[in-house]
Amino acid sequence: MQDQYQNRINTLIKHLKEKQVELAIVTSPKNVFYYTGFNTEPYERFMALVIDLKKQNQYLFVPSLDQGVAEKHSYVKRIVTVSDELNPYQILKDTIGEGVKVIGLETKNVSLFQQEQLNHYFSDFSYQNIGDFISGQRMRKTPEECSKVQCAIQIIEKVLGEGIKSVKDGMTELDLTAEFEYLMRKFGAEGPSFSTTVLSGDKSSLPHGSPDRKIINKGDFLLIDMGVIIDGYCSDITRTFVVGEETAKQREIYETVLQSTRAGVNTVKSGIRIGDIDIAARNVIKEAGYGQYFNNRIGHGLGIDVHEEPSIHENNNMMTESGLLFTIEPGIYIPGLGGVRIEENVYISEEGNVEVLTTFPTELIRIG
Amino acid sequence: MQDQYQNRINTLIKHLKEKQVELAIVTSPKNVFYYTGFNTEPYERFMALVIDLKKQNQYLFVPSLDQGVAEKHSYVKRIVTVSDELNPYQILKDTIGEGVKVIGLETKNVSLFQQEQLNHYFSDFSYQNIGDFISGQRMRKTPEECSKVQCAIQIIEKVLGEGIKSVKDGMTELDLTAEFEYLMRKFGAEGPSFSTTVLSGDKSSLPHGSPDRKIINKGDFLLIDMGVIIDGYCSDITRTFVVGEETAKQREIYETVLQSTRAGVNTVKSGIRIGDIDIAARNVIKEAGYGQYFNNRIGHGLGIDVHEEPSIHENNNMMTESGLLFTIEPGIYIPGLGGVRIEENVYISEEGNVEVLTTFPTELIRIG
Repeated sequence: MQDQYQNRINTLIKHLKEKQVELAIVTSPKNVFYYTGFNTEPYERFMALVIDLKKQNQYLFVPSLDQGVAEKHSYVKRIVTVSDELNPYQILKDTIGEGVKVIGLETKNVSLFQQEQLNHYFSDFSYQNIGDFISGQRMRKTPEECSKVQCAIQIIEKVLGEGIKSVKDGMTELDLTAEFEYLMRKFGAEGPSFSTTVLSGDKSSLPHGSPDRKIINKGDFLLIDMGVIIDGYCSDITRTFVVGEETAKQREIYETVLQSTRAGVNTVKSGIRIGDIDIAARNVIKEAGYGQYFNNRIGHGLGIDVHEEPSIHENNNMMTESGLLFTIEPGIYIPGLGGVRIEENVYISEEGNVEVLTTFPTELIRIG
Repeated sequence: MQDQYQNRINTLIKHLKEKQVELAIVTSPKNVFYYTGFNTEPYERFMALVIDLKKQNQYLFVPSLDQGVAEKHSYVKRIVTVSDELNPYQILKDTIGEGVKVIGLETKNVSLFQQEQLNHYFSDFSYQNIGDFISGQRMRKTPEECSKVQCAIQIIEKVLGEGIKSVKDGMTELDLTAEFEYLMRKFGAEGPSFSTTVLSGDKSSLPHGSPDRKIINKGDFLLIDMGVIIDGYCSDITRTFVVGEETAKQREIYETVLQSTRAGVNTVKSGIRIGDIDIAARNVIKEAGYGQYFNNRIGHGLGIDVHEEPSIHENNNMMTESGLLFTIEPGIYIPGLGGVRIEENVYISEEGNVEVLTTFPTELIRIG
């Protein structure tokens, strides 16, 4: 475990040296977790892994109230605590000293406010974006990381299988959400990996809708999109059920989405353009005449974050390679009628084999 | 309801005009909710309320997949959708046109990456920070907003009262967390307002620890810190229980924290320095000889975000005023022994009266 953090940091340091970065400030909490094993949500408080390449020191800056947990879990052992009433950038300056010319920053995570603070305390520096390199590092998952996602998948599939049995007459979307989230905890999850989505009937046509007091009715599509976090790694699965018996139209939509998901999964292999996975899945929906009812990307990377690199959209020219782990989740969303989404998680192994990590049946299941 | 959004936007526009801002881009999802009523988590996707002061237009930019919900809920009716495969800054430029000289941005929310994108599409502009003004606007809550927080408090107190009854021999922290979160949904919450904290025994000394498979034992302090979201507004309450009977030392620590919380609450009134609330509460702990075991601020604002302005720390020189709603939550955290925190939520009404919104008893309760 400790080796893993050291290897990750060493890989980053090699890159930083190539880029002539003298000081790296890693502030994304998930990136800090990736390099140190310390996993927290600091909210508005300052937290950072700081790598001083000139003095060859590494520091973990944490809010004072996180000191105990940080000391216990962080691979980086120089912990610098910041009390709420102090300015963290002042403390950073006091720790690092003068004369830093090039600072490495995750430009998608560092705010203009933070830049202003850095400008104030470290005048006359330029910055290099290190975020894309880190995203790329995290995107290529080791088998151990894949195993963690698999644990998170196992649990969410158990939650789905058990939870769906509780659907009964008069139940609301929120009731069913409560059942699922209760089971997540019972089965040992650290929590949901994102806001649990339980949508029924017409509402299932909202790709990002939220469960509410709507009653789940006979004849409804019931779309369930959820995941859990285990050991800091996420799962993300969607299945769509029908309550009672489906209409011919519902069956047609469902089968189209299922063929689309399968087409996406079957396209995956090492060494192809990522956008082609999107196109393969999307074409099934287009050819069935439902193209206008599917307006988002086919999938996204999955790991420490529930959404990470790569983004599986048609314009992504990146090539697939070993270590990628991502979702494939096409859907058809027809306002007034309802929606279907079927989401699988796939991994390209070190040997270049494609592993479908999700195992929950994809055929249409009638419930209630 | 619609008036409220219009009033909020008008107040912002007045400020923007004073600052000669020509274009405001509000990207914090919670700020977008505050001005439009549309509440979503766009993850890495671009979402923004865009106010064009020259052409007097307002736009809500949303990911394509949010279009339906945005159209239904947003006060701002010009919805611009962005598909996953397109560059949102290009679309922004196409929508707004040339010649923007001053852009208003929330500097704590806009990333360097976003700045680079804006630099690319809107060359030759300067930016003004509008984030502090917005935080200040949100900090002063109307009675209607306070009512929403009160609803969220009512529910979390009901959850706490019911959930605590389920504590029994052999139960783990995660089991109890599952019970609480189940009840949150059952009682109608949109979800927890932050990661539900259930810590027992030694672990209660970690201000930011997480529940795990640790068994809740007789003699343990049991620290519960949790909240829910209702109508987009948060509650946040902490109570510490003792399982079985407390020791004299536990009783002393508990009573010290209780006196500290009360001292904080009793200090609150309109027109005083915010830092003095922190100092009043902190002094009780210091004078009892536990100063070294309390290393964070006394509290924080509460509303649409679970942590917002004002920050109640000793160096905050801002003066209290009507509309502030915040937590008071001192604690004593002794490694190896355990910790106690007691957290109340208070509001300064339009008439300047101090209302303690939390009603759950603060005296030490023995459970199990």
